[in-house]
Amino acid sequence: MMDVIGDNLDPVSNEALVVDDRINMDRFWSTIEASSEIGKGREHGLCRLALSDSDKEMRDLFVKWCRDTGLDVKVDAIGNIFARREGKEDLPPVLIGSHLDTQVNGGRFDGIVGVLGALEVMRRINELGIQTKRPIEIVDWTNEEGSRFTPPMLASGCFTGAYDLDWAYQRADDTGAMLGDELERIGYKGDEPVGGREIDSYLELHIEQADTLFKANVDVGVVTHGYTSYGILAEFNGATAHTGPHPMDQRQNALVAGARFLTAVDDIGWANASTGGKATGARLVAWPNAAGILSDWAQAVCDVRNDDPDIAAEMHQSMLTALAEAADKANCSYKVLDQWNWGGRIFNDAMVASVRATAEKLGYASLDLPSQAGHDAYFLAKRVPTAMIFVPSVDGLSHSNFELSTREQIEPGLNVLLHEAVARANR
Amino acid sequence: MMDVIGDNLDPVSNEALVVDDRINMDRFWSTIEASSEIGKGREHGLCRLALSDSDKEMRDLFVKWCRDTGLDVKVDAIGNIFARREGKEDLPPVLIGSHLDTQVNGGRFDGIVGVLGALEVMRRINELGIQTKRPIEIVDWTNEEGSRFTPPMLASGCFTGAYDLDWAYQRADDTGAMLGDELERIGYKGDEPVGGREIDSYLELHIEQADTLFKANVDVGVVTHGYTSYGILAEFNGATAHTGPHPMDQRQNALVAGARFLTAVDDIGWANASTGGKATGARLVAWPNAAGILSDWAQAVCDVRNDDPDIAAEMHQSMLTALAEAADKANCSYKVLDQWNWGGRIFNDAMVASVRATAEKLGYASLDLPSQAGHDAYFLAKRVPTAMIFVPSVDGLSHSNFELSTREQIEPGLNVLLHEAVARANR
Repeated sequence: MMDVIGDNLDPVSNEALVVDDRINMDRFWSTIEASSEIGKGREHGLCRLALSDSDKEMRDLFVKWCRDTGLDVKVDAIGNIFARREGKEDLPPVLIGSHLDTQVNGGRFDGIVGVLGALEVMRRINELGIQTKRPIEIVDWTNEEGSRFTPPMLASGCFTGAYDLDWAYQRADDTGAMLGDELERIGYKGDEPVGGREIDSYLELHIEQADTLFKANVDVGVVTHGYTSYGILAEFNGATAHTGPHPMDQRQNALVAGARFLTAVDDIGWANASTGGKATGARLVAWPNAAGILSDWAQAVCDVRNDDPDIAAEMHQSMLTALAEAADKANCSYKVLDQWNWGGRIFNDAMVASVRATAEKLGYASLDLPSQAGHDAYFLAKRVPTAMIFVPSVDGLSHSNFELSTREQIEPGLNVLLHEAVARANR
Repeated sequence: MMDVIGDNLDPVSNEALVVDDRINMDRFWSTIEASSEIGKGREHGLCRLALSDSDKEMRDLFVKWCRDTGLDVKVDAIGNIFARREGKEDLPPVLIGSHLDTQVNGGRFDGIVGVLGALEVMRRINELGIQTKRPIEIVDWTNEEGSRFTPPMLASGCFTGAYDLDWAYQRADDTGAMLGDELERIGYKGDEPVGGREIDSYLELHIEQADTLFKANVDVGVVTHGYTSYGILAEFNGATAHTGPHPMDQRQNALVAGARFLTAVDDIGWANASTGGKATGARLVAWPNAAGILSDWAQAVCDVRNDDPDIAAEMHQSMLTALAEAADKANCSYKVLDQWNWGGRIFNDAMVASVRATAEKLGYASLDLPSQAGHDAYFLAKRVPTAMIFVPSVDGLSHSNFELSTREQIEPGLNVLLHEAVARANR
């Protein structure tokens, strides 16, 4: 399928790394700095929404970097970018990567360190002349954030068969622009089929986005499992009328239905805070949503999460009950337009153990911990052996322009990724 | 100041009307039908937002009609249109009118019957050769609805000195377009100063927008007073963060603050429903308002109303308490960006009694009732003797494409307007 491994592959070829082989942190950091100039948001932050002009600019640069590294770049029909380095044998590839899109008030590291870290891995093993048994591919997943198009992790969901491609194409942003059209507009509706091919395994490096590692002052997070999470996109339908005279018992204010739903979901979060549970009213839109008139339409996005799957399931049930009660109180009808659920003990035990052992071998302190956020790795884990490596987030802050993971905080995890990827590809 | 009364003024001049003088309902209805074609919204409805292209189209047609009727048209610096018919004496004018803008899902009658009804009054007294002692002016007030630019009744508020003109110019719509710029864009930032001149009195015909007249099957509503109403535009400020890992007690989700505020305001409405009280969460916007991220900014528009001023004041206090509690619960700061208050026993007793007597004289059944909605008449009433005439609304429905007042329902009130305007101008 691929014919070249790259011009800058060292002619002296080795199969494996030695413990002292480490990534080039200066080179990696220069890619982070270049990325931090594309789609600048608030101070220190990025606003690089999926399939926006700045996402295209970042993708173009990333593709150029990959090609300069001798990788074979392919884009599938939902815009996922795969940059492949051949192995000695024609075997399914080891995938390493994450996403380059950000939230509207996003940071410079969330997702990005996983993709650009994977690029650094490729560059480094090129320099070291490593010839792995299996191919390795970097992947940049489209629309991980779900900030512009819901749901999040849309394209990894399509890749693994959880979502239908045509359905995904029809996800619209706030202006009505559809994902499929935006893929075409920026030139990233590729020719490759979405999924449907064998993958050896998936390894994703990511910032923790919580403060466990930061507080414990530990180098590397070994992600054992994910918080069990349930998300929902719900719609309320009512009727417009005058905000003044219209009697309370005849009102069908869809905005109020939505507000009641978000309030109840927040209450669910507080009621479960003692077990580390979280519940979020993330989005509420309504129409006409204007002074003087009751709204006849609203949509809400909410989610609940807990480390304990049973409690998470109870929170989910409470959220569904809250939805029905909110609609009923506002005399509106409702429907669930979309639901998503992720997390649990989905990662591959052997891979997780290997990440832990590699961290130790490289001299890093590691900590077993769950992921509280959703990641593309969750979808991949349902189909192929998957593991995640976490690096610390200062104060655990993420989805904020103040998100920060320092060079020193990223370096250990990135070296674990280097060694794990090569080891996995040499199995 | 004006030099012509109009070409089609009958040469045989009379001072007063006789009881059998009535408006020309066919002619009036043809103007309603023409208006109903401009800025069409949903079926049967209009979407003619203030200072939109369709508002301009309607204004242009209205100005043409006024000039064709021999009226002298002037536009003030906030776009209020005055169409004047001179009196025999140089006295302050009697103002009759309402507004031509609509809600985004508005009807064909709200406001419009008051302006086009006033035009029909002018046309009819021209035909009858009436020469009143005082001038009569039709007025079309800019941005009564507050749907595009908050607060409602903005331009009548400026005219009467309640609002500052420069402040009004800076009211922005959802796209950031400012009222002052939009006035210039559609050519209705006029030369006349806003207010600052003597007005004899103000008379406004309006649909009831509640079902009192409709249920009682009465021809004409004599508006004795307005529900006491308090509105608020509040802002919440928090911080963005990840919806997943971020601990509940560290969250500052401004969207949740807003949702809690709207929910509490709705509760206030229900708690006061037995006294006919209403409370509304009308608008909630937030940023980023997207899946995966906590919002750091939200704005909400809410209002409370009651016929009893003391209960209304209590509801207002409850709303302010709810605002503080909502912000506190969501760990956000808040500020009140704007507040408005209207209603009470503001109308002129003598004018109200005259409306009642005129209805009786013309053979119509009338009913004393309060206005539950806000009207430009509320601002005028603070400065000049003011009265309102209500016509029935089918099912009391308004701010809806299904809003309906039939020809037969409007005709009695319109005849009262004719006789009241002339009588007032002849005082």
